[in-house]
Amino acid sequence: MAVGEFVWPEMGKISGVSLGVAAAGIKYEGRNDLLVMSLCDGASVAGVFTQNAFSAAPVAIARDHLANGPRFLVINSGNANACTGEAGVKAAIDSCEALAALGQVKADQVLPFSTGVVGEVLPADRLVAALPAALANSSEDNWRGAAEAIMTTDTLAKGASTQLAWEGQTITITGIAKGSGMINPNMATMLSFIATDAAVAPAVLDKISRFAANQSFNRITIDGDTSTNDACILVATGKSEAPALNEEQGAFFDAFTQAVVEVYQTLAKCIVQDGEGATKFVEINVKGGATAQECFNVAYAIGHSPLVKTAMFASDPNWGRIVVAIGYAKVDDLDANKVKVWLDDVLIVENGGRASTYTEEDGQRVFNQERFCIHVDLGRGDVEEKLWTSDLSHEYIKINAEYRS
Amino acid sequence: MAVGEFVWPEMGKISGVSLGVAAAGIKYEGRNDLLVMSLCDGASVAGVFTQNAFSAAPVAIARDHLANGPRFLVINSGNANACTGEAGVKAAIDSCEALAALGQVKADQVLPFSTGVVGEVLPADRLVAALPAALANSSEDNWRGAAEAIMTTDTLAKGASTQLAWEGQTITITGIAKGSGMINPNMATMLSFIATDAAVAPAVLDKISRFAANQSFNRITIDGDTSTNDACILVATGKSEAPALNEEQGAFFDAFTQAVVEVYQTLAKCIVQDGEGATKFVEINVKGGATAQECFNVAYAIGHSPLVKTAMFASDPNWGRIVVAIGYAKVDDLDANKVKVWLDDVLIVENGGRASTYTEEDGQRVFNQERFCIHVDLGRGDVEEKLWTSDLSHEYIKINAEYRS
Repeated sequence: MAVGEFVWPEMGKISGVSLGVAAAGIKYEGRNDLLVMSLCDGASVAGVFTQNAFSAAPVAIARDHLANGPRFLVINSGNANACTGEAGVKAAIDSCEALAALGQVKADQVLPFSTGVVGEVLPADRLVAALPAALANSSEDNWRGAAEAIMTTDTLAKGASTQLAWEGQTITITGIAKGSGMINPNMATMLSFIATDAAVAPAVLDKISRFAANQSFNRITIDGDTSTNDACILVATGKSEAPALNEEQGAFFDAFTQAVVEVYQTLAKCIVQDGEGATKFVEINVKGGATAQECFNVAYAIGHSPLVKTAMFASDPNWGRIVVAIGYAKVDDLDANKVKVWLDDVLIVENGGRASTYTEEDGQRVFNQERFCIHVDLGRGDVEEKLWTSDLSHEYIKINAEYRS
Repeated sequence: MAVGEFVWPEMGKISGVSLGVAAAGIKYEGRNDLLVMSLCDGASVAGVFTQNAFSAAPVAIARDHLANGPRFLVINSGNANACTGEAGVKAAIDSCEALAALGQVKADQVLPFSTGVVGEVLPADRLVAALPAALANSSEDNWRGAAEAIMTTDTLAKGASTQLAWEGQTITITGIAKGSGMINPNMATMLSFIATDAAVAPAVLDKISRFAANQSFNRITIDGDTSTNDACILVATGKSEAPALNEEQGAFFDAFTQAVVEVYQTLAKCIVQDGEGATKFVEINVKGGATAQECFNVAYAIGHSPLVKTAMFASDPNWGRIVVAIGYAKVDDLDANKVKVWLDDVLIVENGGRASTYTEEDGQRVFNQERFCIHVDLGRGDVEEKLWTSDLSHEYIKINAEYRS
């Protein structure tokens, strides 16, 4: 189940990045579960990783290998290799070493990623056995196959691509993602791999990578859980004819960053659209805050509230639940009388109570939609922040209660 | 639906507290929805109230009136009088004034409480019209009727009572509560009213009231939402022959406090037992913390996780979800290798992964029970904290999605 349709986009190829897939049989039968991304020599690679203290073995290794001139990313689905102790670390390193030998690079130039069941050691032998097949079909034109290989409980393959013209040259940015909850059943993980043919200095790429993740994957919530395996990687191959981006400011930096953010946001929104059991896609936009933190506190209080989320599912414009969530978000000395709330353009709350102009029919019309926005004005300042979330449905309980049964 | 049976206890009368009920027809038909508690002259009254910025009109008034020698508590179900602006304040004050006139006390000696639908102004005329009937049947022996009158989506009336012998005299502590989620559908509220015949100085009673609330109602979570109307009131009438308690320390203070905590905890656990859609009652006990805050962070991360809660519902000992929640709880520099997790007495996690002695059968045996405990040792210090929670079931979604439909 997902909210509405997702039309697979045209995915611009990235010179210097090729993608090979294979069926390693790690958990799933009869489908690809292994992706090898081969990067050209000299590519810049940046990334952000989960903050979970129980981060998986591959996360620590990928983070360590990031600065070594990465040449391969190896990603498996079906097993997260998380909470697996020393045996899990060995399995991840074995995978890196096997791919390094095949690709004639150093093992610390391989970044491993895993997504799937938590608590079982990755069967590295099966992964290693399938590496030659993945390398054999590697192609710059296999983004769709790559997106499918990394799916777990996802019902949609997730891809996004855009282009930017700069000084008469074209820069392409293309990426894929997987994820269907912050973590899935006992399947873990949000993973995303984005590449561009732009030439970007490593420090600049790192800055853009963090900014884009904060504008996208760090603004979505399905169930409030943060996985052990989350990672988001940005590769810049430098194969475009466009000038190199070496500055952390200026018109080129701004235009390129905006294009990267667009791809990240499209992928992040795909994850919400494909959220476990999701029937609604809801933007929560909080303005008038004194700080970004208090805007996020309010937005997440609304986005995490099971009562608000079940009201969304029921298409019930139960505005009392929204103000209750605003009221317990951690905002010091919030003046309830200054808070305003809208559903799309319908004002529902002002002066500490229901707006005099509000009618249940207007609220119902908004909540009947598959996509709508909850706007909040805190009336305290000029800061505005937004996030995206889904509803809480019978299907969510079904997926998560019955997954292992 | 509730977890198991609840046998209504024998409720010791509190000399100086009488309880009258009536059917005011505020929202419900054919049942009592109004409770008037009459307190003797000279009773001490203490209380804790919701921190929600959108706190209801009666909350602010009750808080203001607390120090004026309260003589009446007036409580209605069916309407929370929250998010109702000036009109809501007037309705609450009108109720106080009407009861004060009937009882020949001052209006600021009446404390109002409301629970029910958010966003609709309390129909004070109906409440006022029913006050004489409530006063007419007032009796020290009506705790059961009182507990029933304040129910909203509760399926169980909630009561607790205990006695303490001190210097040859008997002290009785008796209380009632309502609540079935931190907030209910668009019904709001946890309310609790506890009384004792002990003589307790106001400052001492205030201290005990806060401590007992922290040991009980502040340690339960059903859906993580905090209502606009939560209040917990402790009355001491001084009618017992036992000596007065005027010190915030000593053996008498300790014994009395322990007895009060016992009543508060019984009532708080009743709320979890009657949690919306609850099929499991789970204690989460976190020890080995460096601070109480980090123990609570971990306990609430587990207790709020929809993934852990759906696993409880499914009787699925999915330990990966528990460690994921521990991992994202806000504990600085948590060493995952030092964390241990047990289900009752079954060790499931140590050294960063599944315990070698763990078997799925052992975990299943624990999770099959209606009541069990998740123990966590953080391996960082000597602090230990616990809380109580319920699972997340199809019934929760049904109750909260379909309530207004």
